[in-house]
Amino acid sequence: MDNKGLTLSNRDSNTDVTSQTPQYHLGSDDFILVDEIGPRRRTSVKEKVDSVVPWVGSRIKRTFSIRNVKKRFPILNWAPKYNFQCAVGDLVAGITVGLTVVPQSLAYANIAGLPPQYGLYGSFVGTFVYIIFGTSKDVPIGPTAIASLLTYQTLHSSNPNGPSLSPTHAIMLGFLSGLIQLIMGIAGLGIIIDFVSGPVSSGFTSAVAILIISSQLKDIFGIKGGGSTFPQMIDNLVTNMHDIRLSDTILGVICIIVLLLMQLLSKVKIGPSKTPDKYTTFEKAANKTLWMIGTSRNAVLVVVCGIIGYYLTEAKTPYFNYIGYIPPGLPAFEFPKLQDKNGTVTFLEMIENLGSGILVVPLVAILENISICKAFAEGKSVDANQELFALGLCSLANSMCQSYPGNGSLSRSAVNNSSGVRTPFGGFYTGIIVILSLLFFTPYFVYIPKASLAAVIIAAVVFMVEVRVVKPIYRSKKSDLIPGLATFIACLILPLEIGIIVGIGLNLMSILYHAARPKISIEIHKTKGGIEYLLITPDRCLIFPSVDYVRNLVTKHGMKKGIPVVIDCSHIYGADFTAAKVIEVLTQDFSNRGQLLLFYNLKPSIAAIFAGVQPKNFHTYYDKQKLDEVLHSIV
Amino acid sequence: MDNKGLTLSNRDSNTDVTSQTPQYHLGSDDFILVDEIGPRRRTSVKEKVDSVVPWVGSRIKRTFSIRNVKKRFPILNWAPKYNFQCAVGDLVAGITVGLTVVPQSLAYANIAGLPPQYGLYGSFVGTFVYIIFGTSKDVPIGPTAIASLLTYQTLHSSNPNGPSLSPTHAIMLGFLSGLIQLIMGIAGLGIIIDFVSGPVSSGFTSAVAILIISSQLKDIFGIKGGGSTFPQMIDNLVTNMHDIRLSDTILGVICIIVLLLMQLLSKVKIGPSKTPDKYTTFEKAANKTLWMIGTSRNAVLVVVCGIIGYYLTEAKTPYFNYIGYIPPGLPAFEFPKLQDKNGTVTFLEMIENLGSGILVVPLVAILENISICKAFAEGKSVDANQELFALGLCSLANSMCQSYPGNGSLSRSAVNNSSGVRTPFGGFYTGIIVILSLLFFTPYFVYIPKASLAAVIIAAVVFMVEVRVVKPIYRSKKSDLIPGLATFIACLILPLEIGIIVGIGLNLMSILYHAARPKISIEIHKTKGGIEYLLITPDRCLIFPSVDYVRNLVTKHGMKKGIPVVIDCSHIYGADFTAAKVIEVLTQDFSNRGQLLLFYNLKPSIAAIFAGVQPKNFHTYYDKQKLDEVLHSIV
Repeated sequence: MDNKGLTLSNRDSNTDVTSQTPQYHLGSDDFILVDEIGPRRRTSVKEKVDSVVPWVGSRIKRTFSIRNVKKRFPILNWAPKYNFQCAVGDLVAGITVGLTVVPQSLAYANIAGLPPQYGLYGSFVGTFVYIIFGTSKDVPIGPTAIASLLTYQTLHSSNPNGPSLSPTHAIMLGFLSGLIQLIMGIAGLGIIIDFVSGPVSSGFTSAVAILIISSQLKDIFGIKGGGSTFPQMIDNLVTNMHDIRLSDTILGVICIIVLLLMQLLSKVKIGPSKTPDKYTTFEKAANKTLWMIGTSRNAVLVVVCGIIGYYLTEAKTPYFNYIGYIPPGLPAFEFPKLQDKNGTVTFLEMIENLGSGILVVPLVAILENISICKAFAEGKSVDANQELFALGLCSLANSMCQSYPGNGSLSRSAVNNSSGVRTPFGGFYTGIIVILSLLFFTPYFVYIPKASLAAVIIAAVVFMVEVRVVKPIYRSKKSDLIPGLATFIACLILPLEIGIIVGIGLNLMSILYHAARPKISIEIHKTKGGIEYLLITPDRCLIFPSVDYVRNLVTKHGMKKGIPVVIDCSHIYGADFTAAKVIEVLTQDFSNRGQLLLFYNLKPSIAAIFAGVQPKNFHTYYDKQKLDEVLHSIV
Repeated sequence: MDNKGLTLSNRDSNTDVTSQTPQYHLGSDDFILVDEIGPRRRTSVKEKVDSVVPWVGSRIKRTFSIRNVKKRFPILNWAPKYNFQCAVGDLVAGITVGLTVVPQSLAYANIAGLPPQYGLYGSFVGTFVYIIFGTSKDVPIGPTAIASLLTYQTLHSSNPNGPSLSPTHAIMLGFLSGLIQLIMGIAGLGIIIDFVSGPVSSGFTSAVAILIISSQLKDIFGIKGGGSTFPQMIDNLVTNMHDIRLSDTILGVICIIVLLLMQLLSKVKIGPSKTPDKYTTFEKAANKTLWMIGTSRNAVLVVVCGIIGYYLTEAKTPYFNYIGYIPPGLPAFEFPKLQDKNGTVTFLEMIENLGSGILVVPLVAILENISICKAFAEGKSVDANQELFALGLCSLANSMCQSYPGNGSLSRSAVNNSSGVRTPFGGFYTGIIVILSLLFFTPYFVYIPKASLAAVIIAAVVFMVEVRVVKPIYRSKKSDLIPGLATFIACLILPLEIGIIVGIGLNLMSILYHAARPKISIEIHKTKGGIEYLLITPDRCLIFPSVDYVRNLVTKHGMKKGIPVVIDCSHIYGADFTAAKVIEVLTQDFSNRGQLLLFYNLKPSIAAIFAGVQPKNFHTYYDKQKLDEVLHSIV
């Protein structure tokens, strides 16, 4: 191999400032930006075998190092520093969240197509488990709008027009979701979350919000509804519209308006707003009260509606549709049933019935959870793998209490955060409130009108329709609107899992396309001595999908001009065997034509990949002057 | 938005040589290496509408430009220059290929599990069509080993242990393959081929070769066989080994040895090998004869074996298994039947039976075809889309003659090339030979022993096992062995289409992983005035899967050191909305901490993407001196 250029010329460094030892970060070993100087030492097989035992030892040591144990049990980070201030913050926030979670749980169970108590069943054990394993102080585990809708779709996927699958299936779904999340967390597959882009996530969330609102309109109108996709839901609503119940509709609309106004209330400040530290004691108390009412608006509204409902049931024809009897007491703590309908549906049949939901539900759950963690991370990094691990354990624990899948909820996290939560321990008080509700308050839930719960949901999810992101995306990068809109539309008219696959698929195709079609600049340059040459600069790595394209361009322009060609490799950060083979053919073709082909500033690690196929006439230079000399010597 | 850095500072150019207007090549508009200077002019809606009519006009004009018509009908390029020399070259090569294709076709039909005449049916119309539309002079369209094996697997996929699907299904498969190739060619989807890397292709070809050899061993041993995967085939061979016919085995083994020796013959040169121009007339003639015998070895062997077979049938128990009666005459020229078994199997059921083969067969066919084109391209570029278009038309035409799927064959292309073919017109003579065989020679084919055809196949495919690529891959980039070996093993033990999906999937996952985990160098630099700062340099584009990772690293190291952070964006060639949002949060976080975060050498097109989300405290500089000044002014 003729490789004089590589071995003789010196690499000229661009850095003219004092630099300390650089650190390289993870990524891929072969796609490195700046190469280590000097050849790697070859290790013999014996050396490798000898190093296995100490390696295993150090590996075990590292796994159980204090740092790693603290990573797996984040409670160890904050528990030692727990103080009175933390306790007060957590107590207030935990109770406030509890007042939100109870009405929300009842309502979300309705979205999932399950009896209301299943919402409460999923709202306490998970919060306890999260205290130990969770990384974010603001995440209260429980049923969410998105998880509930996905559960609904999964329970209907095997038979779209028939009856829903049983709650036993929903519990098994929760169990399997937890299992998958746990395995992913341990295997370090949190990277998968990174492949959901902002626009796809916005499109998905917006579509879900619209689907949820559509699914709740039936309770506002007091009619029958159903369906999984937007067109189906609208179709069902229109078909049944003649049964509209005016009392439910009026109550529902009023509730929505009241909730939205109460939400404003929590932001209202009495007194001089510009100088908050000059508030009088009265003003402070008034503001605190307003905020408290606003924040616990769901509980307040549901209680008020329940009382109204109770007094109106005296009438012979009930004014409203009520949620009805909820069995009192805690759910049985037991392993999820592996059979359904007294053993006529086996475990495998259950899995078959749940279908792709087994994968989609846990992935979407972790996606929502991590986006909440990020939203409240305050500049700290979020450990997706630990969050998967924690959420997996929470879901598993929840499924032992007959809960369907859930995760952290954005609306409750916001309440938690603004209520001044200090640590994940706030979840303890939330859980206690839910337990108390199940033990003592279920008899009173009977009189809650369904329309008021539908209003709670609608008021919560209406802001999930992210119209506001369209403008910045348009200003920033118009083409990013395509995956976003595609996801939005696909999620509305197709099953949700198909919709999100459409969006992610478009995004991945775009990444792959960009890997296959690098941008290449082609310029005619002149040496100081006046020799013309073609300078071709690819802007990214040379790997199998792109290398033939690059070769074709280099060949085409090289043959057209007939002058020496220099390929500037400064931006080529990676290569593979396929690229090496093509470069070999390319250098051979140029050599056959008697045309000069030189490589400039090729990183040594990549030159080594090319050298692996032993190309002939392969010259690479790192020095502009050297390059000029070679160009002159030829002509 | 505070964007002084961007607007005030000048971009310092790195090029110190005379440069003419650079050309930018295709790729993606947003991932550009060097930006155009100056803002883009905004066009109003009216201007856009006004420009539609001329645009459509110029578009139509361009589609029917001479250049594009010549691209679609490559015959227009070479036909006007056709001369006597071309005619002689094409005649000799065409006939030589014809002598190869006849025995190969009979044998390949056996691989596909179809009667032998179906191989001949697919060997003439396609070659005629390719003359008009084909881009490579060396590609003779017809049945190939790989396409035949895939056809076999497709015909058995719906019922692995039962009987094969009918030839009607195989013809429909050929028709649909052609249709898909044609559509892909017109839609310009040739880029898909680029996503099959060298190692995956080698692994696939090697596995196919081993599968084909295994499938032919039954005929060598004269026993029954079957199965789609390697373990199944071996299992069937072992089970039936007690029926072994010694005469077939001896004939088969001798044939293989003779064929391999004859192949060497074509390379033997009599006379002084170093000075080929000093050959005597006798030596020249002798060499030509040796080469001729070597090259037409398949025809010679099959004729000899046929004669032996003919004389030995006089015996009461036939010595060999013969291929048996082949109906004489050309196939009916008719549209493929849309029903099977007298209408009991409908068109939709046929499609269902063929399953994923409908996609896999045309894709693998074009893959093989293009790799042949590349192998003989002699430094010219290969137009994958035109080749798809041409192969699609060939397959459609073939399916009208009751042929199963085929494409260019590497072994016949090699014969074609070494026989001195000048243009695709050589295929005309090949086709004529096949037609003559069908019209006049089929009665003589009856006596050809199956073992001799099996030997033809085995001797042809044994060199497709690409053990030789392992070493260069290992030397070049060890990790590329993984997709190669995975494809090889998966293709052997699973259905072929699953095997190739495994390999391509691994490759694509690696591209996506590299997009998600860029390499980042982190160094402490000092300005000339002694101010320390952290220089962080990501080596590739910032897009949704990687940006959170980059943010976490920047945050972590920024917080640990507590000194100003400069992100060197020289290598960032692309960005998206998700990245812009994260950069916005990142600048906000740094600003909240009171830590300086500066961007250096960010391409204006990417700065525009970031500016779209209107980040606060976002500063980018293009001038080292300016950067130093800012760093000094802060401290």
